Amino acid sequence: MLIQLKQTCLPDQVACIIDKVKESGYKPASVKTASNHYLVCIGSAEVDIRTIGHLPGVKDVYVVEDSNKLVSRQWRVNPTQIDLGEGVTISRTQFTIAAGPCSIENEEQVIKTVSFLKKQNISIMRGGIFKPRSSPYAFRGLGIDGLKFFSKHCRANGIKVVSEVMQVSQIELMYPYVDIFQVGTRNAQNFNLLDELGKVDKPVLLKRGMSSTLTEFLASAEYIFSSGNEKIILCERGIRAFEKEYRNTLDLNAIPYLKDKSHLPVFCDPSHGVGVREYVEPMALAAQMAGADGVLLEIHETPEKAASDGQQTLNFQEAIQTFRRLRMGDAMRKNWWND
Amino acid sequence: MLIQLKQTCLPDQVACIIDKVKESGYKPASVKTASNHYLVCIGSAEVDIRTIGHLPGVKDVYVVEDSNKLVSRQWRVNPTQIDLGEGVTISRTQFTIAAGPCSIENEEQVIKTVSFLKKQNISIMRGGIFKPRSSPYAFRGLGIDGLKFFSKHCRANGIKVVSEVMQVSQIELMYPYVDIFQVGTRNAQNFNLLDELGKVDKPVLLKRGMSSTLTEFLASAEYIFSSGNEKIILCERGIRAFEKEYRNTLDLNAIPYLKDKSHLPVFCDPSHGVGVREYVEPMALAAQMAGADGVLLEIHETPEKAASDGQQTLNFQEAIQTFRRLRMGDAMRKNWWND
Amino acid sequence: MLIQLKQTCLPDQVACIIDKVKESGYKPASVKTASNHYLVCIGSAEVDIRTIGHLPGVKDVYVVEDSNKLVSRQWRVNPTQIDLGEGVTISRTQFTIAAGPCSIENEEQVIKTVSFLKKQNISIMRGGIFKPRSSPYAFRGLGIDGLKFFSKHCRANGIKVVSEVMQVSQIELMYPYVDIFQVGTRNAQNFNLLDELGKVDKPVLLKRGMSSTLTEFLASAEYIFSSGNEKIILCERGIRAFEKEYRNTLDLNAIPYLKDKSHLPVFCDPSHGVGVREYVEPMALAAQMAGADGVLLEIHETPEKAASDGQQTLNFQEAIQTFRRLRMGDAMRKNWWND
Amino acid sequence: MLIQLKQTCLPDQVACIIDKVKESGYKPASVKTASNHYLVCIGSAEVDIRTIGHLPGVKDVYVVEDSNKLVSRQWRVNPTQIDLGEGVTISRTQFTIAAGPCSIENEEQVIKTVSFLKKQNISIMRGGIFKPRSSPYAFRGLGIDGLKFFSKHCRANGIKVVSEVMQVSQIELMYPYVDIFQVGTRNAQNFNLLDELGKVDKPVLLKRGMSSTLTEFLASAEYIFSSGNEKIILCERGIRAFEKEYRNTLDLNAIPYLKDKSHLPVFCDPSHGVGVREYVEPMALAAQMAGADGVLLEIHETPEKAASDGQQTLNFQEAIQTFRRLRMGDAMRKNWWND
Repeated sequence: MLIQLKQTCLPDQVACIIDKVKESGYKPASVKTASNHYLVCIGSAEVDIRTIGHLPGVKDVYVVEDSNKLVSRQWRVNPTQIDLGEGVTISRTQFTIAAGPCSIENEEQVIKTVSFLKKQNISIMRGGIFKPRSSPYAFRGLGIDGLKFFSKHCRANGIKVVSEVMQVSQIELMYPYVDIFQVGTRNAQNFNLLDELGKVDKPVLLKRGMSSTLTEFLASAEYIFSSGNEKIILCERGIRAFEKEYRNTLDLNAIPYLKDKSHLPVFCDPSHGVGVREYVEPMALAAQMAGADGVLLEIHETPEKAASDGQQTLNFQEAIQTFRRLRMGDAMRKNWWND
Repeated sequence: MLIQLKQTCLPDQVACIIDKVKESGYKPASVKTASNHYLVCIGSAEVDIRTIGHLPGVKDVYVVEDSNKLVSRQWRVNPTQIDLGEGVTISRTQFTIAAGPCSIENEEQVIKTVSFLKKQNISIMRGGIFKPRSSPYAFRGLGIDGLKFFSKHCRANGIKVVSEVMQVSQIELMYPYVDIFQVGTRNAQNFNLLDELGKVDKPVLLKRGMSSTLTEFLASAEYIFSSGNEKIILCERGIRAFEKEYRNTLDLNAIPYLKDKSHLPVFCDPSHGVGVREYVEPMALAAQMAGADGVLLEIHETPEKAASDGQQTLNFQEAIQTFRRLRMGDAMRKNWWND
Repeated sequence: MLIQLKQTCLPDQVACIIDKVKESGYKPASVKTASNHYLVCIGSAEVDIRTIGHLPGVKDVYVVEDSNKLVSRQWRVNPTQIDLGEGVTISRTQFTIAAGPCSIENEEQVIKTVSFLKKQNISIMRGGIFKPRSSPYAFRGLGIDGLKFFSKHCRANGIKVVSEVMQVSQIELMYPYVDIFQVGTRNAQNFNLLDELGKVDKPVLLKRGMSSTLTEFLASAEYIFSSGNEKIILCERGIRAFEKEYRNTLDLNAIPYLKDKSHLPVFCDPSHGVGVREYVEPMALAAQMAGADGVLLEIHETPEKAASDGQQTLNFQEAIQTFRRLRMGDAMRKNWWND
Repeated sequence: MLIQLKQTCLPDQVACIIDKVKESGYKPASVKTASNHYLVCIGSAEVDIRTIGHLPGVKDVYVVEDSNKLVSRQWRVNPTQIDLGEGVTISRTQFTIAAGPCSIENEEQVIKTVSFLKKQNISIMRGGIFKPRSSPYAFRGLGIDGLKFFSKHCRANGIKVVSEVMQVSQIELMYPYVDIFQVGTRNAQNFNLLDELGKVDKPVLLKRGMSSTLTEFLASAEYIFSSGNEKIILCERGIRAFEKEYRNTLDLNAIPYLKDKSHLPVFCDPSHGVGVREYVEPMALAAQMAGADGVLLEIHETPEKAASDGQQTLNFQEAIQTFRRLRMGDAMRKNWWND
């Protein structure tokens, strides 16, 4: 059961509602986000929700049978839209392309990439400055200095910045320079990080853990939401299975599933999902047809010289074709949906 | 190394070529198919292939580094086309839709389905008459009697029949009534069955084993080809992974991979691949964009009454929409490819 | 529900019991094995089993909630024992070691191995004569001629023969020469083969499919049992998971599970389960402590020269140590069980 | 290549060695731990290591081909021993049992458990005070207050404390009260946490990520070591595979592999590895025979009332039997190893 409180709900009223919920055999958790106040009620007793709906201070009450409550579409039927400002919006009604290099390498690279993206009308740039690497001896990213010039050039051109945050202490450092915090697959169940990102007023792009079930994936999103942040983007990026011919096994089944069960926007990262440059475009198009609301694409002027992930990175020429085809695919989808 | 012999190659010439191959440190296997004669040469010695190319009786000689030789695109660059007669062709230039019930249940069902498919311009009908079932007490299909009326109504309407064969002894029984033999996921490494299907002059639709690597999948196709049958269709149908919200995990990465590595046509079965009716259409469209040359769709007039797999079966109304969208997707792809 | 009929049960009585079962909302399947007659009743209606227990001809009736009925321990509490003759028995009270080469290569090899096994008091020899191979160009085994001399030397020395059968037509050929038919992992869901092995009066060693769930594994055993053969040995041999440092991922959790849920003896094949010679002994000992009733071990006088699987095969010296340790482990277990 | 420097090595000498390493085509990383100074040299050039071995300040130089250097047994042949004080040592020569509840629930529980463990001669107690939970609404542990009384009663009785740390900020808080920091499966690739634990002088018990390959698992240990902490215990706790009858799939193959490739002690957690109380003892014994140097066991006076994981927790009576059998198993192993 999920109770949405009125903005005007008084502390006394909240206390009274909580008492009533407990009497009904449920355990309430109070969740305040930037825009709303909820009581998430865990339990399985039978209850006539109208008796709660009539209490003073209650805006609405919903039966939510999913184990993950706040992120469920059982109560919020209209999909979540995320407004990034300057006309950039993430939603189910328009396909989003975010692109950029795996790692930010130097300012020149940023300038060239920003210029390319602007010409291509891409309004979100991805780029890693803190890099999780399997080996402690590998390149771990430029750090906050890299983020500063990455952000500077993007802002000068109306392009939004998405970059991975790896630990709690980086949130404050990165906050002034990013528009979307990305959580990587290895931190998908780093619950303390998720909790802290719940206290931030910027969106979080949450990648699926490489062995997370979809229930666990939604539970990770529930952590962020229940700590106060409603602006979450789910991102399928491939799971770990037995096949070794590609880096990960992109699980596109997840896309219609997540769109069905949750009101959050759903992205796909085909670059990591397949990990082979020649197969990135078909998998991006496939993700779109499966229903993705956006893609993250790794691009680089000269992938063969990239500091990381070159083998799965499109060059600019390839990217132009992929962008064009994704836009044609989006137009076709929109026709269907408006039928 | 793969040597293609001339049709006119004499036994003496073959013997001489074999001697030369052995001298070079390779082990040759002679493969005669309906249309060609090959020597598949296993080994890794360095050899100047021109010395073999000049021998009398040799049509062409190729270096094939893939472990699977005959199915590799390293020697046959032009994709395989399969002609089913009456204008029905399977190829990479045109998207194929095959549809029908999981199980053939009775003649009335066949009549209705054939009539529906004909109206929809679908020229291949699928339907199981020997059903592999996990439990020995479950419905195992109507058997050969079901196939007879299934085939009769299809032929009367110019529709081709694809149905699963489960054991060697069924091949001869089924032969007069099917146009494509289907090998199911549980028999994907039933090598004796594959060998026998190599001796047949009708195409084989080979499903990927639910835990087959792609190298193993191609090796299963190599069994059929090396026993004499070049008409093979590969079909991705989902692998077994950890996610339990859907029946299988459709591995669409496999599609661009298989099209890249092999000259055989590549199909997808989204009905089994996701196993949830609402998600079948998006996954069919996704498979198409990933590059599939065709799909197998489970359809039924009243899925909720189907003898098997109703939960993943489209009703006729849903199927009409899916067919239309697949055709629009195909048109879009063709434009791209003809750019 | 499972009904065991008396040996003296008359056809009329069977018919009457079947009527009663159907009236109760169950679907009965009559199963006759070499030693017993059962009615396996599928359904979920509530029924007072005493009303059936009192019918003439009924020996006993059991509630079996497991989806697999005949192999379940819910009705047969005492574990199945399998008597191979000449004092060789497979059971839960005594640990069985079966050993031998992956492939039978020649008569000399058989003579040496038999002599070694006899000296080591091992009474079951394994050896492949029909080999399932991923590549059609690999060595596929000596075939029935190899089996003849393999069997001859074993019989002369009181050693029982276990060898893999790959297709229905081989059953009759192999029957005179084997004591146990082995079904390999790739045929674990080859239901026609399982059905036919149900009609044989020799035991079947059934390996788990490399991606079979345990429910599916038991269903495969149920196929054999329900076709008439009660003598089944389950064998865990490793599943397919993501780790690539070893050939398979040996799932020893399966052993206590299978012993808990089924009355059948449970073996383990650590040679395939880990696939690395140095790790075979620890995994054999681990399987024993997990509760296995026996192991299959690949041994060879000179593993480095073996026709197949040399990298996972113990030489005779290593085998002697492993046998000794397994016997010490068995003695320790017996002490615990007799506490 | 791995260079161990003398304790007396002067800065000038280090600089000179580093120059020489770079000249040889390697990239050196300087690693100082509590007891040693290393240069980890990444590269693949051919080099005569004697030319480096003769440089002033070099204690020894090793060729280490494994991708993980410091944790490899290629240079440190003698296994790592970890001294916890008061006679408690973790090593390959003696089997360690650590036991305790999943969650610390209250002081009375701690008192009873400590008393039980003392009577059973168990010298390490496990217990969670920060609990990673899939759902944000589940019990997340007592926190630092729980740890204080947990630690107090253990210390009064000579029992060592192992407890999970979930984030960097908890390290300092927990430091005074724990003897071993545990890293859970969800944080196995939380590289910042691993880096910080490298700066601590207490041992770290590192659990394998539920989808970590063994190379990745060792890389996580390499993070800790290369940040300065040599005291690491590896712990296999089950991977995520397709089987759903148990919580995880315990991968015991990992145990002989890790002992072969690394000098670090290797533990096993059968409680999480199988997740079913009845199967915990056989899997603990199996882990021991596979070569584990110790086990973590979940025990509780009344598992059915435990705050978490009751279904996989042994009661005291069951634990007594398991401890006794593990000790008998250990005695048997020692006899073999001393042969």
